[in-house]
Amino acid sequence: MPENETNADENVIFVGNKPPMSYVLAVVTQFNGGSDEVTIKARGRAISRAVDTAEITRNRFIKDAKVKSINIGTETITNEEGKTSNVSSIEITLTTKK
Amino acid sequence: MPENETNADENVIFVGNKPPMSYVLAVVTQFNGGSDEVTIKARGRAISRAVDTAEITRNRFIKDAKVKSINIGTETITNEEGKTSNVSSIEITLTTKK
Repeated sequence: MPENETNADENVIFVGNKPPMSYVLAVVTQFNGGSDEVTIKARGRAISRAVDTAEITRNRFIKDAKVKSINIGTETITNEEGKTSNVSSIEITLTTKK
Repeated sequence: MPENETNADENVIFVGNKPPMSYVLAVVTQFNGGSDEVTIKARGRAISRAVDTAEITRNRFIKDAKVKSINIGTETITNEEGKTSNVSSIEITLTTKK
């Protein structure tokens, strides 16, 4: 699964292990490119970084952005040996719609 | 600030650096003690663990618990030298109300 990928088509930013500002830049770029909604997704330990990304974007860069929705869930991951494990996930959607 | 404290009076569980199951146990104990709503709070890197706590509680122990609300924010912390820094926070409220 791609963890550091940004998907421009669907306005989804996947947060991985890079510094938060990398993802903030990606989110800000989406908004400045004309999107009025961006979804930030993360799994496992990157969840904290997804929250940082949303907060830094709102507080410092896109001040009219609001949190539209936050969803949490559990995903099942299968490793190379066929063993499965559960990992938590989060989806934070920011919007500039009034 | 108390990070590992559980506050029985307000049904708030503060998630810190212990293993997630410590906090799951605290949440389950709250529900089994008659509470119909429990709020899980965390800051910084413990945010991922707060999501784990909510998900494990819902999926394995309190199956009729639903996510009532999730809020994220930013708190300013002052260290011993008087320097301030910002840290992200999360509040997840689980409810068994129908």
